[in-house]
Amino acid sequence: MSIQLRRQVDQPLYLQAADQLRTKIETGELAAHARLPASRVLAKKLGVNRITIVNAYAELEAEGLVVTRVGSGTFVAGRPDSNSSETITDQPALWRGGPPRRHWNANQMFAEMMRMARQPGVISFSVGTPASEFLPVNEFRRAINDVLRRDGAAALQYEEAAGYLPLRNMIADYLEQKHIEVTGDDILITAGCQQALNMALRVLTRGRDNVLIVEDPCYLGLLDIITAQRITPVGVPLDEDGLRIDRLEQLILRHRPQLIYVIPSFHNPTGITMPLERRRELVDIAAHYGVPILEDTSYDELRYVGKALPSLKSLDTADIVLHAGGFSKTLVPGIRIGYLVAPPALRDRMIASKQTADILTSPLNQRALHTYLQTGHFADHLQQVRLAYRERLEAMLAAIEQYFPAEARWQRPDGGMYIWVEMPPDGPTATNLYLMAINYNVAFAIGSVFSASGSFPHALRLNFTTHPPAEIEEGIRRLGKAWKELLARQDSSLQPNRRSAVPIL
Amino acid sequence: MSIQLRRQVDQPLYLQAADQLRTKIETGELAAHARLPASRVLAKKLGVNRITIVNAYAELEAEGLVVTRVGSGTFVAGRPDSNSSETITDQPALWRGGPPRRHWNANQMFAEMMRMARQPGVISFSVGTPASEFLPVNEFRRAINDVLRRDGAAALQYEEAAGYLPLRNMIADYLEQKHIEVTGDDILITAGCQQALNMALRVLTRGRDNVLIVEDPCYLGLLDIITAQRITPVGVPLDEDGLRIDRLEQLILRHRPQLIYVIPSFHNPTGITMPLERRRELVDIAAHYGVPILEDTSYDELRYVGKALPSLKSLDTADIVLHAGGFSKTLVPGIRIGYLVAPPALRDRMIASKQTADILTSPLNQRALHTYLQTGHFADHLQQVRLAYRERLEAMLAAIEQYFPAEARWQRPDGGMYIWVEMPPDGPTATNLYLMAINYNVAFAIGSVFSASGSFPHALRLNFTTHPPAEIEEGIRRLGKAWKELLARQDSSLQPNRRSAVPIL
Repeated sequence: MSIQLRRQVDQPLYLQAADQLRTKIETGELAAHARLPASRVLAKKLGVNRITIVNAYAELEAEGLVVTRVGSGTFVAGRPDSNSSETITDQPALWRGGPPRRHWNANQMFAEMMRMARQPGVISFSVGTPASEFLPVNEFRRAINDVLRRDGAAALQYEEAAGYLPLRNMIADYLEQKHIEVTGDDILITAGCQQALNMALRVLTRGRDNVLIVEDPCYLGLLDIITAQRITPVGVPLDEDGLRIDRLEQLILRHRPQLIYVIPSFHNPTGITMPLERRRELVDIAAHYGVPILEDTSYDELRYVGKALPSLKSLDTADIVLHAGGFSKTLVPGIRIGYLVAPPALRDRMIASKQTADILTSPLNQRALHTYLQTGHFADHLQQVRLAYRERLEAMLAAIEQYFPAEARWQRPDGGMYIWVEMPPDGPTATNLYLMAINYNVAFAIGSVFSASGSFPHALRLNFTTHPPAEIEEGIRRLGKAWKELLARQDSSLQPNRRSAVPIL
Repeated sequence: MSIQLRRQVDQPLYLQAADQLRTKIETGELAAHARLPASRVLAKKLGVNRITIVNAYAELEAEGLVVTRVGSGTFVAGRPDSNSSETITDQPALWRGGPPRRHWNANQMFAEMMRMARQPGVISFSVGTPASEFLPVNEFRRAINDVLRRDGAAALQYEEAAGYLPLRNMIADYLEQKHIEVTGDDILITAGCQQALNMALRVLTRGRDNVLIVEDPCYLGLLDIITAQRITPVGVPLDEDGLRIDRLEQLILRHRPQLIYVIPSFHNPTGITMPLERRRELVDIAAHYGVPILEDTSYDELRYVGKALPSLKSLDTADIVLHAGGFSKTLVPGIRIGYLVAPPALRDRMIASKQTADILTSPLNQRALHTYLQTGHFADHLQQVRLAYRERLEAMLAAIEQYFPAEARWQRPDGGMYIWVEMPPDGPTATNLYLMAINYNVAFAIGSVFSASGSFPHALRLNFTTHPPAEIEEGIRRLGKAWKELLARQDSSLQPNRRSAVPIL
């Protein structure tokens, strides 16, 4: 393979290598599923340090052009279709291009996270799922049987797009207990909280000219919606109390945003919870400038220490807050039920948006959830998972303390599923650590994918809910080892690469 | 209530009345849920024929501004919220307006259809649902129990966005039998066929500048997606063999559409099926001009006479056809499972679009469908519903022959769920008939809502699958009576209104 690297030019060697490899992939010189040379081999051939090639491959992987498979190497991404290039030539021009790519988009990250989580022997901290061992399988089975015996065909027919009214009333009662004044009429049932967010953005924004204020970093699935709907995200930095209010006002005045999206409790990915005072300030500023807030409460019930805080919606006297929630994180992801509370004036448009998307959420699943909630088991379930997750959180914090570099920084979360760790800024990036960690059979979520601005190159999001304490300790130990190996390699490789004008790592 | 009608001006009296009532509703002079005067009372007061007021109310109802409730009158639409006008004033400007309205949009029509279908005593021909009495409730219950016993928590967890692979493989096998060459990798599982259509349009079009060619009339849910995504629809007229190919070419050249959407078999709303030759021509023209086709096969399995015809996808050698299907019409709507077959080059973007929308389709429902299909019961089920629906089709055709005016026109469908009837063009409109029919406890779908161009003012879509033959006959008899009453009133009311420059009806 002919690649020419020049140390005299401004561009780092690894980017030169990545550029030339990208061209070969895009022109088909490197076919789909072709195996790239081992980094050690290519590095030797080109007379550069191996880390240069590792970085080049990481860059291409981040772009979705190559995939790394543990133990077998790096391959050009694509499909094992022998005549695929021919097929593509025959296709209309439309088939080719694609939407503008983020550095590593949420879908790719999610696919990678799911892939790694399924690999045998891998301890994956990358997902955002509840622990399978606590899912109330038998209770749901009973609920479904009860529903089908009771309702028969009605549970399998079309019904109202807004959702099954008894479930909406039940959710309204639950929200009333949390001082949100609603009735079942105010609730739209959605296919998980993700769809609630999607509906809200679809109704409230109008594409390219629109600006959405998000926390930086932000939930990946929301960034995905933003990309799909061509909304411009503006990130507000966080401090230990969440979204920085002192920055918010000037951003509102400068960008005139359509919406502010926020996860006030146990934020994904940072685990941060906004204290009451900050919540009040946020709602006040939004009301003052007439900017709606979309509040995501997916993790609210997963509190392990301290007392519950009021939701933004319960503090909202100006009817400026849209309130989204769901049962995927706290109960079961697989029934796909979430909900959205929107101001009355928006309700019809939200229902219309739901119907346009997929007509209605499965009435069977809605009724099963309703019947399950009626049994009162949910409270016991929450009690059980809170205890277990808290133990896992402590196990992970202890292991991080023990195995991570002393310069790493993190904040103890009061609940949720994630610890956000900032590794030393002068060390390897999280992407590099990820690629090294794969060799140690451990995975995590790379922090920068959660950033609309591509910031946080050294941050990791670590999920602590899916593995028991002993596995958590083992996984963090492996991650510490991967870090040390990478650091050792970086130290030994920095010398020859110092010639580049821009640092390689 | 002060309303001034002037016979000297060009605008018909009923539109003058509608305009003035609309203003009163929009300014709040007529509050939400206020009861409008009975048409007879208002007509007397204004010195016009009652049909003028009926028409004015029908116009406002079509705009969603008022609702008619059987036996109790016409009311201003809205919400029984005593301080609602105050609330709205406090809301950001964003809350107010709305997306551009079609004459009577699909969501309103659907809501009305569902509402009427639920009224006790109403025989509704307006829905597109399978008959509840044939839904295989117990077979599904067994399948769900089998899945939860076998897979446990895995059936309630997150999994691949593209769908449960064994189900995708099973659908691929089914399509292979229909001469479509696919593997499970080519199948995206969606929340019903509606979501498959939504994903396809989202990936293939880019909003306002885009043109989509549709049959005129067209499936309502598709028109809804078009409105939401601000796509410009261009309607192609149909003849008795479906979409008129002789018109297609010039429309492609003039509008350079992004996509052609078509239901080749048992078209919704007309029931028309494209013969083989027409299918070949359509695929050839699309391939020639490089315009993708989105084929909706929702009704394909509901054939009552004749032999199955090849799908467009099975005739497609240029990989230009996207193929969407689902189980809502043929099996059960309530599990919300559909699928999309897209060319390989589009697959990743389709999966990304699905994930952005709602992460994944319920894995429990996917597995339940897979397990149900494994039992082989689906073939028996189809056999059963085909026999029943055929009998119902015959009952409806016979009743139409007997009770409808001799000048009405319709085409016998070979399958599906609908008969499309064109009432005499010089008689009352379908909207007027609908409003009269409500008094006779019978409902249908108004033909013009299926038209991107607002055509077919005299057409009715009649569903024949949801009622047994005796109820079908009774419903059609009532519809015939409503027609005759309306016609009698029209005749007696035409005289005094002839003065208007534009005919009132």
